[in-house]
Amino acid sequence: MNKNWIAIDWGTSNFRAFLMDENRCTDSVSAPCGLMQVHDRQFAAALQTLIQPWLDQSPQLPVLMAGMVGSQQGWCEAPYVSLPAGGEQLARHTAEITTPWGSPCRIVPGACCDSTFGLPDVMRGEEVQLIGLAALYPQADHCVILPGTHSKHAELHQGKILRFSTYMTGEIYAVMLGHSLLGRDLPQAVEDDAAFTLGVQNARLAPCLSNALFSARTLRLNGTLTPAQVPGYLSGLLIGAELLQLPAKEAWIVGSPTLNGRYHRAAILSGIQLHPADGNDCFIRGMSQIYQKLNGEQL
Amino acid sequence: MNKNWIAIDWGTSNFRAFLMDENRCTDSVSAPCGLMQVHDRQFAAALQTLIQPWLDQSPQLPVLMAGMVGSQQGWCEAPYVSLPAGGEQLARHTAEITTPWGSPCRIVPGACCDSTFGLPDVMRGEEVQLIGLAALYPQADHCVILPGTHSKHAELHQGKILRFSTYMTGEIYAVMLGHSLLGRDLPQAVEDDAAFTLGVQNARLAPCLSNALFSARTLRLNGTLTPAQVPGYLSGLLIGAELLQLPAKEAWIVGSPTLNGRYHRAAILSGIQLHPADGNDCFIRGMSQIYQKLNGEQL
Repeated sequence: MNKNWIAIDWGTSNFRAFLMDENRCTDSVSAPCGLMQVHDRQFAAALQTLIQPWLDQSPQLPVLMAGMVGSQQGWCEAPYVSLPAGGEQLARHTAEITTPWGSPCRIVPGACCDSTFGLPDVMRGEEVQLIGLAALYPQADHCVILPGTHSKHAELHQGKILRFSTYMTGEIYAVMLGHSLLGRDLPQAVEDDAAFTLGVQNARLAPCLSNALFSARTLRLNGTLTPAQVPGYLSGLLIGAELLQLPAKEAWIVGSPTLNGRYHRAAILSGIQLHPADGNDCFIRGMSQIYQKLNGEQL
Repeated sequence: MNKNWIAIDWGTSNFRAFLMDENRCTDSVSAPCGLMQVHDRQFAAALQTLIQPWLDQSPQLPVLMAGMVGSQQGWCEAPYVSLPAGGEQLARHTAEITTPWGSPCRIVPGACCDSTFGLPDVMRGEEVQLIGLAALYPQADHCVILPGTHSKHAELHQGKILRFSTYMTGEIYAVMLGHSLLGRDLPQAVEDDAAFTLGVQNARLAPCLSNALFSARTLRLNGTLTPAQVPGYLSGLLIGAELLQLPAKEAWIVGSPTLNGRYHRAAILSGIQLHPADGNDCFIRGMSQIYQKLNGEQL
């Protein structure tokens, strides 16, 4: 096993790479060079440019990648692995690609399952953070929220991912504000605790989101909300509706400080206890787990 | 009371006028001249142009209008009337305006209430159709669906509107297809019974719409849906979720033939019996009811 290697999270909009010395990150690179910015599928050339300073030191560093780079629209498809699965299953189903400069390179697959509600569900990238979280904070069972455009609620047992459910919280927020009646003629949004709290509370009243969302209009019409408060209210409504479905009263949350803060406030109002974990730490640890499992395969 | 008068439904995008002889419609005009098409708030001039042929015959025909023309952004605000209310309450709260050519003119107010879920809700235009429906098909209690961009479920007792709830079914459908991941790279939609049916069924499985909506992505990824089937599936999912909240197993539906057809199919799958009623008939009868109540006031 090569003790030096590169862990990469390559998504639709962003690229992040970590230079690793065994389990330890010694350097990192972050760039707005998501897969959408790569022209004519020139993924190898794009990657080489981004990590060239490290290759200059060690020309054939092994590379382990995760995220949308392994999707149908990515560099090379690494088909979804069915749950339950842990680091070992993910390692076993990595997709192997060759690089023009000779680095061994693999892509971690996404995961699929039937959600708590019996509908098919998929994730790609988050599975690494989940494996990493379980390794960083070992316990028998984990309930985890990965907030974002497509927020995930996952359940783990003995470090294996059992199942998860996706909530389009971030995307519904963005498209309703940007393109529906709810967002018409709004001034710059302000972080507003009162409006956010009201949103979380009202999510409990209205079981159907297509009804609850309309209250962002009526509460503005009747003067309860100022136009500047509408985004905060909508955020509370969507996060509140999501948290109503969480399968436990205690969960880990792996997200940015801003999002974690919002979920934390909503969780308190919903009687849920959240433990924050750093997204980069979880990713790095998860990739290390998978890289170790690949050890025997001489990545 | 003048036996000849004009009933007008003036909304954001459309204008419809009916020449009335007491309760009977003798002529009608429909034009894509919604309030948004009126420049510099020149409402009187726009209206005069649209109904001039009728004014040529009878220069001071009374005019009764309903719809967004009575909103804050309309010609003259007719503030929402609190429910419960029937034709008499709506007549009593009409807003009076003067027209340069001398026609007496009034605008029917919208209605507001706390929805079944305790959230404030509003309608403007639909209240007339509800009053008309109750007059056309008298019975002690009516449960009514008014499908559309903002679908309404209303409950009536003895011809009075008791309460209603709005579902943003049509608008969520449009913005998610037009602006979210769910609508990306879709060919022209086709009416697809199988996909629609699956959507209605899956709405029952997933209680939270922000979760259920993601299945329009995953079922496409796993090959259950073709891209052309996604719109039909999404429509079934949203209408199915809406119908789960209907407070009765039997209801009237007042909409266009296309929408009524979709709701009818979803209702059968949901064990709900729907009775269709024509939207124009309901509007004309509702306006006649209100015009009669205004009788003593010499509109």
